[in-house]
Amino acid sequence: MDLLDRLSEILGPAQVLRGADALAHGRDWTGHYAWEPMAVVRPGTTEEVAAVLRLAQETGTPVVPLGGNTGLNGGTCAQGALMLSLARMTRIRDLNPAARTVVVEAGVVLETLHTLAALQGLAFPLTFGAKGSAMVGGFLSTNAGGSNVLRYGSARALCLGLEVVLADGRIWNGLTGLHKDNTGYDLRDLMIGAEGTLGIITAAVLKLVPAATAHATALVGLDSLSEALKLLNTVQAGTGGAVEAFEFMPDRYMARLARLKPALACPYAPRPVNVLIETGTTVPGADPIGALEELLAGAMDANHVTEAVIAQSAAQRRKLWEMRESAAEITFTTPDIVDCDIALPLDRLETFLARMTPALAALDPGAEELVIAHLGDGNIHYTAYPSRSDPDLAQAIRAKVSAEAVNLGGSFSAEHGVGISKRATMAAHKDPVALAMMAAIKAALDPKGILNPGKVLP
Amino acid sequence: MDLLDRLSEILGPAQVLRGADALAHGRDWTGHYAWEPMAVVRPGTTEEVAAVLRLAQETGTPVVPLGGNTGLNGGTCAQGALMLSLARMTRIRDLNPAARTVVVEAGVVLETLHTLAALQGLAFPLTFGAKGSAMVGGFLSTNAGGSNVLRYGSARALCLGLEVVLADGRIWNGLTGLHKDNTGYDLRDLMIGAEGTLGIITAAVLKLVPAATAHATALVGLDSLSEALKLLNTVQAGTGGAVEAFEFMPDRYMARLARLKPALACPYAPRPVNVLIETGTTVPGADPIGALEELLAGAMDANHVTEAVIAQSAAQRRKLWEMRESAAEITFTTPDIVDCDIALPLDRLETFLARMTPALAALDPGAEELVIAHLGDGNIHYTAYPSRSDPDLAQAIRAKVSAEAVNLGGSFSAEHGVGISKRATMAAHKDPVALAMMAAIKAALDPKGILNPGKVLP
Ligand SMILES: Cc1cc2nc3c(=O)[nH]c(=O)nc-3n(C[C@H](O)[C@H](O)[C@H](O)COP(=O)(O)OP(=O)(O)OC[C@H]3O[C@@H](n4cnc5c(N)ncnc54)[C@H](O)[C@@H]3O)c2cc1C
Ligand SMILES: Cc1cc2nc3c(=O)[nH]c(=O)nc-3n(C[C@H](O)[C@H](O)[C@H](O)COP(=O)(O)OP(=O)(O)OC[C@H]3O[C@@H](n4cnc5c(N)ncnc54)[C@H](O)[C@@H]3O)c2cc1C
Repeated sequence: MDLLDRLSEILGPAQVLRGADALAHGRDWTGHYAWEPMAVVRPGTTEEVAAVLRLAQETGTPVVPLGGNTGLNGGTCAQGALMLSLARMTRIRDLNPAARTVVVEAGVVLETLHTLAALQGLAFPLTFGAKGSAMVGGFLSTNAGGSNVLRYGSARALCLGLEVVLADGRIWNGLTGLHKDNTGYDLRDLMIGAEGTLGIITAAVLKLVPAATAHATALVGLDSLSEALKLLNTVQAGTGGAVEAFEFMPDRYMARLARLKPALACPYAPRPVNVLIETGTTVPGADPIGALEELLAGAMDANHVTEAVIAQSAAQRRKLWEMRESAAEITFTTPDIVDCDIALPLDRLETFLARMTPALAALDPGAEELVIAHLGDGNIHYTAYPSRSDPDLAQAIRAKVSAEAVNLGGSFSAEHGVGISKRATMAAHKDPVALAMMAAIKAALDPKGILNPGKVLP
Repeated sequence: MDLLDRLSEILGPAQVLRGADALAHGRDWTGHYAWEPMAVVRPGTTEEVAAVLRLAQETGTPVVPLGGNTGLNGGTCAQGALMLSLARMTRIRDLNPAARTVVVEAGVVLETLHTLAALQGLAFPLTFGAKGSAMVGGFLSTNAGGSNVLRYGSARALCLGLEVVLADGRIWNGLTGLHKDNTGYDLRDLMIGAEGTLGIITAAVLKLVPAATAHATALVGLDSLSEALKLLNTVQAGTGGAVEAFEFMPDRYMARLARLKPALACPYAPRPVNVLIETGTTVPGADPIGALEELLAGAMDANHVTEAVIAQSAAQRRKLWEMRESAAEITFTTPDIVDCDIALPLDRLETFLARMTPALAALDPGAEELVIAHLGDGNIHYTAYPSRSDPDLAQAIRAKVSAEAVNLGGSFSAEHGVGISKRATMAAHKDPVALAMMAAIKAALDPKGILNPGKVLP
C-alpha cells in the first residue's frame, strides 16, 4: 500500500488532498514561491497528527506544517513534500476568564481569538494585517509580532504552554497555564519561533489581558525620526507606559497609500514622518483622549509635532488603523520586490535609512524604496522595488540591507523569521556557534530531518 | 603536568583554590548539602572561562558553575568536581540609559544592578531576599523570580541577550539588546533556567525599566485567600495593572516572625491572611497612596479587608518589606526542613492548603508547617518542620506536596529550579516526552556530560 493510501486509511480519504486539490496549496501569500506538494493532509486531532508523523518518520517523508499560509518568508514551501494543514484543528479546549487563559488548537484563526476574548471583556493583544487568516500554530511558529509588541510583547510573550507532536510522532504535553514553572529546560520557547522544524504545534495555552476600557488613537506628523522617538518617550512617561502602538509611515508610504487606496489618504499633507500612536487604559474613569491631546499640545509647542489628528470615534480609529494595516497589501504589489524585515537599536534607525537610500541607488539607480515600521520596537519593514527583474540584483539588495542592519547592531529578521528567504543571510550573519548549536538541537529532536526540511538552518 | 597545574598556568596560581581554600566553597546556603570539590577556579574573563572548559572537555572533568551560592536546591553541589566561580567577572561592559539596557558580566551582584539602575532614574525590577549575594549568572541560570514577577516577569523576561561558554569551550556571542530578533531558535531562553547544565553564562544584556516615581505599600489583613484574590483584582483594575507585589504572609508566619525578629512583628493582631501589597507609578503627579487608600476603603466596606496599614514614609515601606524578605532566614532555621516551592492556578491555592494540612498531620502528627507566597503568581513556599530527622519521612512529605500540586494543575518547582533536591520529583511528575527532549538536548550540547553533572535531569 503506498503512502497516500495509508494516510487515507488514517485520516479518511477526504482529508488527503491530491493533484489539483493539493496544488491549490502550492503557492505562498507573497507570490514569490510556488511548488508542487506530494499531497496535503488535514488531520483533525492531535492523535491524527501523531499518526501522520509516525508514518512520515517510518518512511522518511518530509512534512511541512501549514497554518494560514500568510508567512512572508517561504516557510510553507513544500516541493515534493507532504503538507500537514492544521486548519481543521479549531477547538477551543478551555476558556478561563478568571485565570485569563485560553487553551486553543493550532488551527484557530487569530481574529477568532480577538472576538473570543472581547466577549469576556478581555483582549488577546497580538495583532497584524493577516489576522483574518493567520493561525495559532503559524503565529507561534514564526513568533509573530505586529503592532502591540511595544506593550505586550511578541507571540512568545503571550504563550504559557504548548502541545507539540515531535518528528517521530511522540506527543509532548506542555499545556501548562502557570506563570511560574522552573522544572527543566524551556522547551516551549524553543518550539516557538522554530518555524515547524522541531515539532508540530497542535495546541497552546495563551494569555489574555484585561481589555482597555478606553483608547486614544492619533496620527501625528513630524519632521524627523529623532523627534518621533522623543515624542514616544514623552507619551510613555506622561501615561505611565500606556503606549500600545507607535507605527511609522513616511511620506512615501502615504503617497503610495493615496494612490492605491484613495479612501485611506492621509488627512493632512503628509510630513516626512507620520506616526500612528495609540494608548490604552483600564483605569475606570480615565480620559486617555484628553491626556493624549494634552501631551500632543505640549509637543506641538516644543516644536516636535507639526500635525496631529486624534480619532474622536470608533470609526475614525478604525480608519487610522486601516491606513497602517494595508501595509502588506500595498507593499506586495508584485513578486519582484525585495522585502526586508529588520530590527535596529532605536538610536540607529535614522543612520540606517540615511545609509540605505544612497546604497540602493548605487546598486540600482531606478529602484524605489518603501518603508514602514513598528517604530517603538525599532522594527523596519524596508522594501525595495528594483527597476528590473534580476535575481542577482535582488540578492545584492537584500545582502546590503542585512549587512547594514547587522553592522549597526541590528537583526536581519525582526519578526518574519527565516524560512527560505533568509537562509543565505543566516549563513552570512548569524553567529557560527549559534548556528552549530541550532544544528545540534535540530539533529537531536529530528534526527531524520523530516520536519520542514530546507528551512531556517543554512 | 596534572590538571590543577595546567589550570594554574591558565589562570595564575592565585585563582586555583585547593584544599581548605576550596573546602570553604563546600556547602550551600541551606546547609542541606556539603561536599569536597576537587578545586575552585576563578577565571576573570570569558576567554579564561573558555580555556578552563577546553581543558575540562579534554580531560573529562566535571565542572560546576558557581555564582553567589544562594540557590536553594543544591545546584552548586560539587563532590569531586571542579567548581568554576564567576565572582571575579564583575565588569559593567556597557550601560545605555536611553535604550534601557545594561551589559553585565556574570559575577555582578543583583543589588549592584539595583544601585546602578537607580543612578539613572531606572530600575532593574528583579528582587528577592538574597539580592546582596546572588549574581547575574546565578539568577539567570535558575530563572529566579521574587517579589516583582507579577508586573515584570521572572529573570527570563528581563534578559535580552547572553554570552555563553559551551562545554567544549566555544563561545556563543548572543549579546543582542534588540527586543525583536527572529533569526533562528531561541537559544537564550534555553540557557536561562538550565542551571549550568548546558553552558556557562559569562555575560548578559539586561533590560532596565523606568523607575516608579512613587509607590504605595500596604499590609492588609483578610479572612481568606479568596478574599485576598478578590482584592488583587480590585486593585489591578483600579490602578490599570500597577500592582508590583502581592505577597501572602499567614498568621503562623507572623507568629514565627514575631518570635525570631521581634522588631518586625505585625503591626496589628495578625489575620489568617496578611498581604503585602505594593503599587508603583511613573505618571507625573500621580498619587498612588491616595488611590490605594481609596481602593482599600472600598474593600473594607465590602468586608474583604479587616486591617490595613499603609506605609507613610520610606522607612515604613522598608520595614514592611523586611517582614517579607526575612522569609528565607526565618524558614531555614535548621537543615532538617522540607522546603517546597510550588506553583498553582490561583483558584486552587485554597484547596491545596486545605488538603496539605491534614495530609502533613497524617504523615507526621508532630510536624509543623510554614507558608509564605508570592500570591499574585500562585507561587507558594510550603515548608514542613518534621518532628524527627528522618530522610524517608522528609522524602514522603516532599512527594506529597509535589503530588498535590501537580494533581491540582500546578508545578513542583515554581522558581527555585530542580538542582539535586527535585530530581526524584522530576522523574515522578515531569512529562516523559519533555524529559526525553531534555536529555536529547543535553546530549547534543554537552556530549561528555561535564557541565554540572547529576543536576536537573533525573
Ligand atoms: C497582510 C500581512 C501582514 C502581516 N503582518 C505581520 C506583522 O505585522 N508582524 C508579523 O510578525 N508578521 C506579519 N505577517 C507575517 C506573519 O508571520 C504571519 O501572518 C503569521 O504569523 C503566520 O501565520 P500562518 O498561520 O499564516 O502561518 P503559515 O504561513 O501557514 O506558516 C508559517 C510558518 O510556520 C510553520 N507552521 C505553521 N503552522 C505550524 C504548526 N502548527 N506547527 C509548527 N509549525 C507551523 C510553517 O511551516 C511555516 O514555516 C503578515 C503577513 C501578511 C500576509
Ligand atoms: C534569602 C534567600 C531568598 C531567596 N529568595 C528567592 C526568591 O524570592 N525567588 C527566587 O527565585 N529565588 C530565591 N532564592 C534562590 C535563588 O535561586 C538564588 O538566590 C539565585 O537565583 C541564585 O543566584 P546565585 O548567584 O546565588 O546562584 P548559585 O547558587 O551560585 O547557583 C545557582 C545555580 O546556577 C548555576 N550557575 C551559577 N552561575 C552560573 C553561570 N554563570 N552560568 C551557568 N550556571 C550558573 C549553579 O551551578 C547552580 O546550579 C533565595 C535564596 C535565598 C538565600
